[in-house]
Amino acid sequence: MADKMRATIFLEPGRIVLGEKPIPHIGPLDALVRITTTTICGTDVHILKGEYPVASGLTIGHEPVGVIEKLGSAVLGYEEGQRVIAGAITPSGWSNASLDGCHSQCGRDGPHGFKPLGGWRFGNTIDGAQAEYLLVPDAMANLAPIPDGLTDEQVLMCPDILSTGFGGAEAGKIRIGDTVAVFAQGPIGLCATAGARAMGAAEIIAVESLPARAAISRKMGADHVVDFTHEDPVSEIMRITRGRGVDVAIEALGRQQTFEWALRCLRPGGTLSSLGVYSEDLRIPLDAFAAGLGDHRIVTTLCPGGKERMRRLMAAVAGGRVDTAALVTHHFGLDDIETAYDLFAHQRDGVLKVAIRP
Amino acid sequence: MADKMRATIFLEPGRIVLGEKPIPHIGPLDALVRITTTTICGTDVHILKGEYPVASGLTIGHEPVGVIEKLGSAVLGYEEGQRVIAGAITPSGWSNASLDGCHSQCGRDGPHGFKPLGGWRFGNTIDGAQAEYLLVPDAMANLAPIPDGLTDEQVLMCPDILSTGFGGAEAGKIRIGDTVAVFAQGPIGLCATAGARAMGAAEIIAVESLPARAAISRKMGADHVVDFTHEDPVSEIMRITRGRGVDVAIEALGRQQTFEWALRCLRPGGTLSSLGVYSEDLRIPLDAFAAGLGDHRIVTTLCPGGKERMRRLMAAVAGGRVDTAALVTHHFGLDDIETAYDLFAHQRDGVLKVAIRP
Amino acid sequence: MADKMRATIFLEPGRIVLGEKPIPHIGPLDALVRITTTTICGTDVHILKGEYPVASGLTIGHEPVGVIEKLGSAVLGYEEGQRVIAGAITPSGWSNASLDGCHSQCGRDGPHGFKPLGGWRFGNTIDGAQAEYLLVPDAMANLAPIPDGLTDEQVLMCPDILSTGFGGAEAGKIRIGDTVAVFAQGPIGLCATAGARAMGAAEIIAVESLPARAAISRKMGADHVVDFTHEDPVSEIMRITRGRGVDVAIEALGRQQTFEWALRCLRPGGTLSSLGVYSEDLRIPLDAFAAGLGDHRIVTTLCPGGKERMRRLMAAVAGGRVDTAALVTHHFGLDDIETAYDLFAHQRDGVLKVAIRP
Amino acid sequence: MADKMRATIFLEPGRIVLGEKPIPHIGPLDALVRITTTTICGTDVHILKGEYPVASGLTIGHEPVGVIEKLGSAVLGYEEGQRVIAGAITPSGWSNASLDGCHSQCGRDGPHGFKPLGGWRFGNTIDGAQAEYLLVPDAMANLAPIPDGLTDEQVLMCPDILSTGFGGAEAGKIRIGDTVAVFAQGPIGLCATAGARAMGAAEIIAVESLPARAAISRKMGADHVVDFTHEDPVSEIMRITRGRGVDVAIEALGRQQTFEWALRCLRPGGTLSSLGVYSEDLRIPLDAFAAGLGDHRIVTTLCPGGKERMRRLMAAVAGGRVDTAALVTHHFGLDDIETAYDLFAHQRDGVLKVAIRP
Repeated sequence: MADKMRATIFLEPGRIVLGEKPIPHIGPLDALVRITTTTICGTDVHILKGEYPVASGLTIGHEPVGVIEKLGSAVLGYEEGQRVIAGAITPSGWSNASLDGCHSQCGRDGPHGFKPLGGWRFGNTIDGAQAEYLLVPDAMANLAPIPDGLTDEQVLMCPDILSTGFGGAEAGKIRIGDTVAVFAQGPIGLCATAGARAMGAAEIIAVESLPARAAISRKMGADHVVDFTHEDPVSEIMRITRGRGVDVAIEALGRQQTFEWALRCLRPGGTLSSLGVYSEDLRIPLDAFAAGLGDHRIVTTLCPGGKERMRRLMAAVAGGRVDTAALVTHHFGLDDIETAYDLFAHQRDGVLKVAIRP
Repeated sequence: MADKMRATIFLEPGRIVLGEKPIPHIGPLDALVRITTTTICGTDVHILKGEYPVASGLTIGHEPVGVIEKLGSAVLGYEEGQRVIAGAITPSGWSNASLDGCHSQCGRDGPHGFKPLGGWRFGNTIDGAQAEYLLVPDAMANLAPIPDGLTDEQVLMCPDILSTGFGGAEAGKIRIGDTVAVFAQGPIGLCATAGARAMGAAEIIAVESLPARAAISRKMGADHVVDFTHEDPVSEIMRITRGRGVDVAIEALGRQQTFEWALRCLRPGGTLSSLGVYSEDLRIPLDAFAAGLGDHRIVTTLCPGGKERMRRLMAAVAGGRVDTAALVTHHFGLDDIETAYDLFAHQRDGVLKVAIRP
Repeated sequence: MADKMRATIFLEPGRIVLGEKPIPHIGPLDALVRITTTTICGTDVHILKGEYPVASGLTIGHEPVGVIEKLGSAVLGYEEGQRVIAGAITPSGWSNASLDGCHSQCGRDGPHGFKPLGGWRFGNTIDGAQAEYLLVPDAMANLAPIPDGLTDEQVLMCPDILSTGFGGAEAGKIRIGDTVAVFAQGPIGLCATAGARAMGAAEIIAVESLPARAAISRKMGADHVVDFTHEDPVSEIMRITRGRGVDVAIEALGRQQTFEWALRCLRPGGTLSSLGVYSEDLRIPLDAFAAGLGDHRIVTTLCPGGKERMRRLMAAVAGGRVDTAALVTHHFGLDDIETAYDLFAHQRDGVLKVAIRP
Repeated sequence: MADKMRATIFLEPGRIVLGEKPIPHIGPLDALVRITTTTICGTDVHILKGEYPVASGLTIGHEPVGVIEKLGSAVLGYEEGQRVIAGAITPSGWSNASLDGCHSQCGRDGPHGFKPLGGWRFGNTIDGAQAEYLLVPDAMANLAPIPDGLTDEQVLMCPDILSTGFGGAEAGKIRIGDTVAVFAQGPIGLCATAGARAMGAAEIIAVESLPARAAISRKMGADHVVDFTHEDPVSEIMRITRGRGVDVAIEALGRQQTFEWALRCLRPGGTLSSLGVYSEDLRIPLDAFAAGLGDHRIVTTLCPGGKERMRRLMAAVAGGRVDTAALVTHHFGLDDIETAYDLFAHQRDGVLKVAIRP
């Protein structure tokens, strides 16, 4: 093992480059994972554009699939050479937030143990996964062995996209027989559709204008795909549900427009499950909100993490309950990461997700 | 029993008057209740001001305490002469919404069975309780016998104020050991404070500027009362919680300002339980919402109703778990209802709730 | 319409016969339904054998599919001629139990409103569905219109078998990624398997010895079928789960043996969801129960009913989420009901469920 | 600091003695706590009697209050000299069970991460708290700083008794207005009574024959105390609840008799929350269980642990929501531990809990 590795580094807004960095030294609770496959997330594009600030010099990426290269001295229960994933969110396990089940808001510092987005460290507050090697903190809480027989690509969506999309369905507390609408069918919206299907929704209405995504949406479980460029999605959803509205609406884009549509198509007492990352204040229209008297719920979810979450998601993949293969539209080597960013950031060539192989 | 009765009638914005009406004829599922005590709600003042539209000629009021005068031919299980209350919300029991536990959004018409605010009928879509007699629809679902030994005044808050305030605590899913903030200590906020206490909150911070309400707030369970005219309530709550924020924040006024304060004082993963009736669009500030990634929940509650809800609330009163006596600050006869409205609408003389005795 | 109808009548243990009865007169809240398809339940066989006592002369059966013949004077929102089902359990909607969401234990009599099994009336405390006509009480709470395009047979399992089986999965609070075992694959066990699948279980292990049932079990969603006559099911489940045990075990037979197996294959903190009707005291082995310290849950479910439940189940059928066609193995006219009982009670000819057409 | 310390050691059934042991050496994730106050639990008496087997030579005790003497090299966020408690249950935080919120069944070994009772280590699988010093494993997940102003005795019940008792109320999902019965008013039963009160139960019926315990029971929140030596507790509870039964029954002794009483006094759809440690198979009477059709739930709870749980309990104490002072009836030095065991094991002199001060 050499001392240096290739890594995808954020320099300044507009510049994410392939560079060289020392291979990380690990502490007693850490693990070093050799990345075999990773991918680029929409959040990485926000970082690229300077919309989400991270430190200059940081390695980007939070979706690791790889092999354990080295284990910290206090790490028990794993073996070097094991194939593993880690979630985009790496909770400590021991913070007050983690112990309370709120892993994504895990605060390591200070006496209180909660920190907004504190569980998201890879490619945010510590070096990330778009590199040859990755230091995984709190390894015993975060390394999840890949079940025999699953390929890298089959589990590549588990660290973030699948966990987030399913998380949106779960936070909506979808029940057997529910009607669900999902706004936007990008990778996360597609996984939310799959999550709604997995939880027993009887009728799923996706809202998406791109024909390729609409086609995949039907594969993932949508019964209807409404093209908002051709018809008003709220009216159309009301027509499909014969005036009733949906039990749960999932927002998977992060815009005022989709948030508002989601609220307007809810039945009284329904739940708006929000997954989007917003970039401006949100407005709740008084009428759509029944002036506060509609027994509505608005819930938000940051990608659930930790090894038990990853284990469950991989079990769903292994059992054939969800298949995210159709989401990986392009493949690149790590050396071509800048090309991959260019393609992905501009959503060219029908790209949904790319697989990056160091 | 005469044919006519006195009733408090909405004529037009600005005019609620005492008038005369026929005593209602009841159908097979209804009951006629002779009102012994009722009260005025903040919502009635909205109606008076024309901010919430109801039909001209409607009898106002939705908080009945009384005696069963007559039972519909199909009503079983009650006796004339029984002392009862009915909730402000009178679910049918048989609508899809009711059968699904969503009683306040009970839709009687149409094939779908949900209707925004559909459970609220008294003084909204049918004649209400500020009268000598009240027709109670779906009587078997709504008449709740008053336990022996409880006075009218002891149960007068159950139909609306206590059910709503407790509902806000319940919708927040307050747990033993939680820290809770309650914004505004009007009658509903005071009952939300009592609800937080009843559910085991370890530390309760009320936000209120009127000294008399602050004093009652402490009696109802607040450990701290923050006067927002003297200090920024968010900073003060952060100081009290040593930077952690609260687990649950209850909004009990219906304003952008209090909604926003409630959101800003939440810990990551916390719940904003909203009880207020808003009169304009709400804004969710991006930073307070962690851009949608804070695992926040925003939940709204319309006063829970139905006889089982009323039974439970009266059991809490009978067991001494909550005492709303301090909320009734003034007494009037029905003949003085217009004076009572004048006092209540202008919040004169430290009024919290008035007891009206026909 | 004649005055008389054919009905399947319990006379005494061992004797259920086809007889003649007056067509029921309906009250203001009732509906009269002309039965187009119904079926026989295992419970009916218990009644036949005298193991579950009902009054001599009672019409048996609790799984109605039919057409509204006549509506009570107070029943709104339906039309004569509409195709409907009603659940095996017919909650009042207005009892305290119903208003509290505990529809199956609905108590109509007395001041408290709860009654063990009180929601089960058809073929138990009032005349049932194996007849030409059926009186449906509390019609507005119980008549569920059949969606266009669904046949009688497609919805025939909804009133009991599907509602109960799904109810077992729901009461187990199955989550995406769970491992679930289902003990016995009779009609209810098969529907529990389908329910586990519908809720996102990643791995489902059914326990059943009959090859025909094992085959249908795989169609309904089982990944493994363990034949308890060839291997110890607990050992086999532990082998399949690599020593972990299952998150949820569903008992669908009603025997000490299966109950105990279910408990023994649970992981610590797991849930035993019991659907079986037991005929003797149950024993909880100390070791399987971790002496009371294993954070186990044992939950029981009586078939959920009411029109909203039926609506949701039929939505799942209409959406193709579950297909119970394979469960209907035999067809009879009402005139052949005694033959049908004979076949069903002796489980001859691979019978699972029979369709009875008056 | 010397090398040796006094410790309470289990030798063989019938023999727990004060002996001398080396002060523990701590690893990187551990902390060494100097015990300032501890106590004896009923479980320790089971160990003494040989009813619960532990290794000869083990230090007993699982209820530590003390001061941080030394921190492992990887432990962050604490200071030596801080006053802390740790729960009787010390979850790892990082096991699959812990990450799933099932801390008490935390499995450190093996790939699956669940182990029956695996979170209980002190005085069970590693040395315990009845000594001068205690090694706390996974210190960052388990050390909970004591709020300023609370004495050792005020928090002495938090590690086990209060956490378990409250846990029984929480597992029962007690709601505002519920009626609750608690069987046996030993220390855990008394805390379950306090927990029922803290969660808003409107009427609490304790079952206990000892007058001193009955008196404390009323202080902790019981409205009625039924002496089972004078009257049948099931009949009496049915009389008090006017035939309805209780919503939640908490078993806090661990006997067939109390388990059965608890089941028999439940309303249909009620929850039996079991805290007792049983010593033989349990029997579920068919009639009390409605043959499996009563929508009953039986839930068991092993003392919840971890620092966040301890923080919440101490917050409840600090806020005056619960006062366990009356439970500490006797005081001993560590040198008198054998006398303390003798008193406690024979329940002499009205002992409830003893405070042991090294």
